[in-house]
Amino acid sequence: MSTDMQVSQGDLPLQGITVIDLTRVLAGPACTQILGDLGARVIKVEQPGVGDDARAIGPFVDGTSAYFLSVNRNKESIALDLKQSGDREIFERLLERADVLVENYRPGTMEKLGYGWPELHARYPQLVMTSVSGFGQTGPYRGFPAYDMVVQAMSGMMSVTGHPGAGPCRVGVSIGDLGAGLYAVIGTQSALMRRARNGQGERVDVSMLDCQVALLENAIARYGAMGSVPGPIGSRHPSMTPFDVFVAQDGWFVIAVGSDALFRRLCDLLDLAALAGDERFATNALRCMHEAALKELLEKRLQTQPRAHWLKLLADNGIPTGEYSSVADIVEHPQVLARGMFAQVQTPGGQPLRVAGNPLTVGGGQPLVRRQPPALDADRERILQELAMPLAPSA
Amino acid sequence: MSTDMQVSQGDLPLQGITVIDLTRVLAGPACTQILGDLGARVIKVEQPGVGDDARAIGPFVDGTSAYFLSVNRNKESIALDLKQSGDREIFERLLERADVLVENYRPGTMEKLGYGWPELHARYPQLVMTSVSGFGQTGPYRGFPAYDMVVQAMSGMMSVTGHPGAGPCRVGVSIGDLGAGLYAVIGTQSALMRRARNGQGERVDVSMLDCQVALLENAIARYGAMGSVPGPIGSRHPSMTPFDVFVAQDGWFVIAVGSDALFRRLCDLLDLAALAGDERFATNALRCMHEAALKELLEKRLQTQPRAHWLKLLADNGIPTGEYSSVADIVEHPQVLARGMFAQVQTPGGQPLRVAGNPLTVGGGQPLVRRQPPALDADRERILQELAMPLAPSA
Repeated sequence: MSTDMQVSQGDLPLQGITVIDLTRVLAGPACTQILGDLGARVIKVEQPGVGDDARAIGPFVDGTSAYFLSVNRNKESIALDLKQSGDREIFERLLERADVLVENYRPGTMEKLGYGWPELHARYPQLVMTSVSGFGQTGPYRGFPAYDMVVQAMSGMMSVTGHPGAGPCRVGVSIGDLGAGLYAVIGTQSALMRRARNGQGERVDVSMLDCQVALLENAIARYGAMGSVPGPIGSRHPSMTPFDVFVAQDGWFVIAVGSDALFRRLCDLLDLAALAGDERFATNALRCMHEAALKELLEKRLQTQPRAHWLKLLADNGIPTGEYSSVADIVEHPQVLARGMFAQVQTPGGQPLRVAGNPLTVGGGQPLVRRQPPALDADRERILQELAMPLAPSA
Repeated sequence: MSTDMQVSQGDLPLQGITVIDLTRVLAGPACTQILGDLGARVIKVEQPGVGDDARAIGPFVDGTSAYFLSVNRNKESIALDLKQSGDREIFERLLERADVLVENYRPGTMEKLGYGWPELHARYPQLVMTSVSGFGQTGPYRGFPAYDMVVQAMSGMMSVTGHPGAGPCRVGVSIGDLGAGLYAVIGTQSALMRRARNGQGERVDVSMLDCQVALLENAIARYGAMGSVPGPIGSRHPSMTPFDVFVAQDGWFVIAVGSDALFRRLCDLLDLAALAGDERFATNALRCMHEAALKELLEKRLQTQPRAHWLKLLADNGIPTGEYSSVADIVEHPQVLARGMFAQVQTPGGQPLRVAGNPLTVGGGQPLVRRQPPALDADRERILQELAMPLAPSA
């Protein structure tokens, strides 16, 4: 650990790290946005004329994609055509000064551009190259295109999500992309930490499918232990009962009972002494077997009062409980508001949009959004000046 | 960047980092397992007699929890009672030598033990303290207990998952825990990178609820842009059609069509020229409006052939497609097998269990499982010897 550098008050964790960002749409941009939030300088290299494909995905605010706005704060933009020699020279000058290159092309594309890992490593030995792809840089599926939907389905993630008998169900967010984005951040940081010791960049090869499998950990372990194939079970917990979403007079809320003692306390609080004495419900194992019957009996009682009544009664008595929120509810929720979990970004025309922030409060006294999501090629002039290169327009 | 240390061939990214691990069950252990996979030394400090609560969660293999086995490789175990002075002394000696402390107690617990952040930071200025909790260390909900189920429901994650009209639906994996675990790794690494510059440890405060909100990013942006509240939509894509799971003669598979040109190509391949010319399906926006009608027409045709037929035909012709897998399928899948995405761990009695590996291939020529999940207190003797402390049994 080097302690010879003193840092200023505004120092962010990844300050001093420069990331060249060739990514498009979601998994890659989610990764580089986190790196940028944490203080890295992120230079987004986009295709001239069109830019990141996400710029064309609706809905739009003031002519700018909300999808793009939500994952591209704290980035600069320069449009470069990596098939043109002038633009390749600019790109290579950027790589000389960079710590990290992140890309999410299909495997083989960087090689075709002459920027495969062996070439890059030979020429820029300090450079970490993080590649995010559907299936990874190796294996029989490496060349196939993938989307979030494909890896959610192929990994088994869909097979454990949804209501029994209702057919396939996606996780409602793009966990195939976002999971890979988070692992790509971890891999990039790990490579930078190793580089701090040995001076060498390395390749970080992140497969979206692999990341979904990693997130399935407990389902895979249960299958290995029991031999029965986990399926979808709606909203309830796979091995604890009652641990589910229940309907009250005016809507849904959660009751999470993890022990027999808590179950007896719940029955007391609900004036359901008969349930506490019912032999079908005497232990967690028995309650899991008779889950549907128990849920019906509980809901019959719960429907006599509004959620707020039950939430207060249970919370006051140490029964884990919680609200069921819509997206409209969560953006007004006192806890996440107190935590500053939303950020406001702006379109190039100045229109605001509320987006999710970063759960890591990285301090440094700086706002989360240090730089608004860029218009295509917005930072060309300054970047070329920094590189001491002539100010040619983009191809 | 310091280049004065040369590292051995077996060097892993987080080699040299020591993590004291006070975590239980899932969010915390998932974080520390990743740190361990990446090369950190992880010393799990458990409650004497019982240990990590996950040790009691079924199903069991050879008397050991499969749940525990799946998130506790590459860790040592020592049982310490943090309310006993002798054990506190051992714990404090460990902290003196540690780089990171990870804990996922309810906020306030560490303070009650005399190990709040101000005390720890004053005494161990080099120490990074990563705290994972349901709602974070601040805000009106900070003291409430939370489980994966609670934060999935409260964040809105459930509200966008499931089938329309079928009621609440959990993401089938514990994304509330695992999302927080991934962010906790990122925050810990960030803090270590900043510490390499300024010599100071810092507090990383990770809220499970915040992390779910971060994963909702596109739903929040869409709501902000359009004002309509996103709801569950089963297996299809929110803004592209046909982009869904479809039923063939023998089961489900994915078709992911992202452009009008690909849609026309799909119609050709399926011999459905009438669809290509149907004005209801002429553009993606129109196809989204008439999604149900289009799905019915496509499935009528798709049900005439088995999945394998369609997967090959579509893949050969550049239409993104993919298998729908169960957990039983994915553990045999040629791509994840080629990527080495499964690991085998063993119970203390030597029984093997297949678990998910780490999607980051961190190299160093070492196996992923350098150390089997420990029995409770398994490493006491060696750890005490290292600390030059007397070999007292655990309390």
